Amino acid sequence: MLSIVIIGSGNVAHHLIKAISKSNKLEIKQVYARNKVNVIDVIDENKITNDVSQLKEADLYLISVSDAAVAEVSNKLMLENKLIAHTSGSLDMNVLDSKNRKGVFYPLQTFSKKKDVNFHEIPICLEAQNEKDYEVLETVAKNISNVVYSINSQQRKALHVSAVFVSNFVNHLYKIGNDICDENKIPFQILLPLIQETAQKINYLPPVAAQTGPAVRNDIEITQLHEAFLSDESQKKIYQLLTQSIQNNVKKL
Amino acid sequence: MLSIVIIGSGNVAHHLIKAISKSNKLEIKQVYARNKVNVIDVIDENKITNDVSQLKEADLYLISVSDAAVAEVSNKLMLENKLIAHTSGSLDMNVLDSKNRKGVFYPLQTFSKKKDVNFHEIPICLEAQNEKDYEVLETVAKNISNVVYSINSQQRKALHVSAVFVSNFVNHLYKIGNDICDENKIPFQILLPLIQETAQKINYLPPVAAQTGPAVRNDIEITQLHEAFLSDESQKKIYQLLTQSIQNNVKKL
Repeated sequence: MLSIVIIGSGNVAHHLIKAISKSNKLEIKQVYARNKVNVIDVIDENKITNDVSQLKEADLYLISVSDAAVAEVSNKLMLENKLIAHTSGSLDMNVLDSKNRKGVFYPLQTFSKKKDVNFHEIPICLEAQNEKDYEVLETVAKNISNVVYSINSQQRKALHVSAVFVSNFVNHLYKIGNDICDENKIPFQILLPLIQETAQKINYLPPVAAQTGPAVRNDIEITQLHEAFLSDESQKKIYQLLTQSIQNNVKKL
Repeated sequence: MLSIVIIGSGNVAHHLIKAISKSNKLEIKQVYARNKVNVIDVIDENKITNDVSQLKEADLYLISVSDAAVAEVSNKLMLENKLIAHTSGSLDMNVLDSKNRKGVFYPLQTFSKKKDVNFHEIPICLEAQNEKDYEVLETVAKNISNVVYSINSQQRKALHVSAVFVSNFVNHLYKIGNDICDENKIPFQILLPLIQETAQKINYLPPVAAQTGPAVRNDIEITQLHEAFLSDESQKKIYQLLTQSIQNNVKKL
C-alpha cells in the first residue's frame, strides 16, 4: 500500500483525491488545504490539515496548487529527501526545491469540480530524477489510470501548449458559437451533435484529413458572407485569422 | 411511400443516400451525378443518371451540390411546380429557381465520405414556402433523424457561422495541436481523451462555465511562456488572439 499526501484543493487536487480514494492499493494519508472547506466533500475531515508543519510521513507528496505557487509551496515544506511531485503541465520539474527528490505527475485533462471524469482514461505524464522514484509514480499512476506516459519537462511544455489549443481555445470557440446562437434566438443545443462528431472524427482520421467547411474549400463567397454577418469585431478577427490559417495550410499540401 | 431524387454526389449527398435508403418509408427514385462513379458505392447503377433531361417524377428533389452551383443547377432542372430543396447551411431558400416550389433540407453535421455517421442524431433544419411542402420535408426528415427543427433562412445563416466556429475552426485547432506534437515527437494520441472530454463537457455545462486554462486564470507567466515557445508566426498570432478574447470575456462577466 503506497501512502500519498495531497497538497492543494483546486480542481485537479479534487479529482485526484477522488480517483486515489477509489484504489485499494493506495492510501490518502492526508490533504493539505489552506481552507478546509474546499475539500471536505471528498475526504474525511480528520485527514485535512491547514498547518504545513503537521504533514505526515508518506511515500509520495503531490503538490497540486496553481502554477505560480508550486515553487513557494515546495520550498515551505518541512520535509527532507521525500518524493515530491507537482501536477503541472507547464512547469519544469526543477522548480521544486532541491531538499527533496523531485517528480512530475501530470494528468492531462480539463477538470471542473462540477463535472465527473473517468480517471482511468486520463493520460498521466510522469517524470522523476531516478528510476526508483519513477517506479513509485508509475505504480500510483497505473492504479488510477490505464494510460501512463514518460514525458520529460521539455516535451511536457509542448504538450501543454498543444492542450491549450485543442481544449481551452476549442472551448472558447464553443462559447463564441453559443453567443452567436443566443443573439439569433437559436437553441445552442442544435450544435451539440456536430461538436461531438467533430471531436470523435479525429479518433479515426488525422485532423488534416477531417477538415471540412468553406475555408478549406476556398469558398470565398461564403467566407465573405460570414465575415459580413459578424458584427462583433473580435469574432470577425478570429474568423479571418483562422480562415486564413486553414487556407495557408491547404496551399502547403 | 415518399419518393426522392438526389441531385449531387458529394459528401452530404453520399450520407443522405445511405440514410434514406435505410428507411422503409422512403424511396430513392434516382440519383443525378455528373460522374456516376462517385455514387456507385451507395446506390444501384440503374438508378444513377448524368442526364438532367432524364429526371424522374418524385415527391421531393434534394439538391446537394456545392453552394456555388445550387442556383445554376436549380435553374437547369426541366421540372415545373415540383418541391425542390437544397441542403446548404449558408444559402437563402430563394436562390432556388422560382419555376418550382422551394425548400431547405439542411442536415447540420460534418460529413467525410470515409467516416460513417449515425444519421438519427443529426439535427435537420427545414424551411419551406408553404405548410404542405413543409410537411413533406418533415416526413422525410423524421424518417431519417430524431432531431428536426424549423429554421428560417436568416437563422440558418447564423447557425452556419456558429457551425464554422464550433466545427471547422475547432478541427483546425486540433490540427495545430497535432503539428506541435509532431514537431516535439509526442504522440498526438495523448491528447485524444482531453479532446473528447472538452467536447462532452458542454453537454453538461455551458461553454463559459467550462472554460479552463491559463488565459481564463489570467496566468500571464504561463501565457508568455507559451508565446515564447511558439516559433511558428501563424500559431503565435492565433494563440495571442484567442488568449486575448478569453480574457476580454472574463472582464465582461
